[in-house]
Amino acid sequence: MTFYERVVIMILKVIFHIDEMPKWGLLLANVRNLIEAKGEPPAELEVVANSEAVRLYEKERADSLLTSIGELSDQGVRFVACNNALKALGIKREQLLPGVSIVPAGVLELAEKQAEGYAYIKP
Amino acid sequence: MTFYERVVIMILKVIFHIDEMPKWGLLLANVRNLIEAKGEPPAELEVVANSEAVRLYEKERADSLLTSIGELSDQGVRFVACNNALKALGIKREQLLPGVSIVPAGVLELAEKQAEGYAYIKP
Amino acid sequence: MTFYERVVIMILKVIFHIDEMPKWGLLLANVRNLIEAKGEPPAELEVVANSEAVRLYEKERADSLLTSIGELSDQGVRFVACNNALKALGIKREQLLPGVSIVPAGVLELAEKQAEGYAYIKP
Repeated sequence: MTFYERVVIMILKVIFHIDEMPKWGLLLANVRNLIEAKGEPPAELEVVANSEAVRLYEKERADSLLTSIGELSDQGVRFVACNNALKALGIKREQLLPGVSIVPAGVLELAEKQAEGYAYIKP
Repeated sequence: MTFYERVVIMILKVIFHIDEMPKWGLLLANVRNLIEAKGEPPAELEVVANSEAVRLYEKERADSLLTSIGELSDQGVRFVACNNALKALGIKREQLLPGVSIVPAGVLELAEKQAEGYAYIKP
Repeated sequence: MTFYERVVIMILKVIFHIDEMPKWGLLLANVRNLIEAKGEPPAELEVVANSEAVRLYEKERADSLLTSIGELSDQGVRFVACNNALKALGIKREQLLPGVSIVPAGVLELAEKQAEGYAYIKP
């Protein structure tokens, strides 16, 4: 490994993509494993949910995974919802967990982040 | 966002990957959302179908999604079929929708496009 | 295609990701197609298995796919298992096929390889 590669790894940027509800448990475990393996939260770590997967962000949901999202959010992980998906499912901004950001289109966010050097992982 | 990053985003290149038939509806909605969010079709936007997903390209198929493919194709989106998949499924070039391109191997196309700076999205 | 892009393609680097057992057949066919399309094994071709997908690496398994892994491994493809997944499933190093490498976290490997210029493909 060259010096240049070590620098690249040091400022690791990762974008996780999820569009199916049943994948949330695996995705959140993946995020926790990544943070633990690095020893600290990467400076740039983002989860983009589109399609039906945005449903998990509803704060009224009685789901133990919401606790994980809250804890990871506190550690600096950004959680993002696709506005096209929210509109299609009739979910309003005030129904979302505090801390969840909204982007106009999840796919545009995924493309732009990769153009900025983020690695893409889809659990 | 630096000037350099804004330039990268401006010339957005995206490759979509599909290898399962049931994902076509979601994939085409993703492509439409990306184009709408950008306000114009990205200069470089390609859909690579391999494995069983190439079946949707058969022009004799009575599927409303074919209309979407035709419309997106007219807007400049490239639709590509993996020749290994076509051979395995016994589908001939003349059975495909006009405008669909054939590449020798879908996976090689996916790898080469990423090496050229394309973002990868798998719905 | 510029000279620079052709050089990038020539030294093609690809990382395949698998986290579901039923996808192994498709993944190994993808790897074989990529090698065949290039005419020779890419210098840098790696398969990262995490979550339940690490189960296929157990050498006692009576599965015809193990032969494919052995053959591709002989051609230089690297097969990697996520240690978090091995621990969660109670699988020990000595139960794995010879030639399979272990990384502390599959997701970190996927992120670091992309930071080093690998293309990501998830069959």
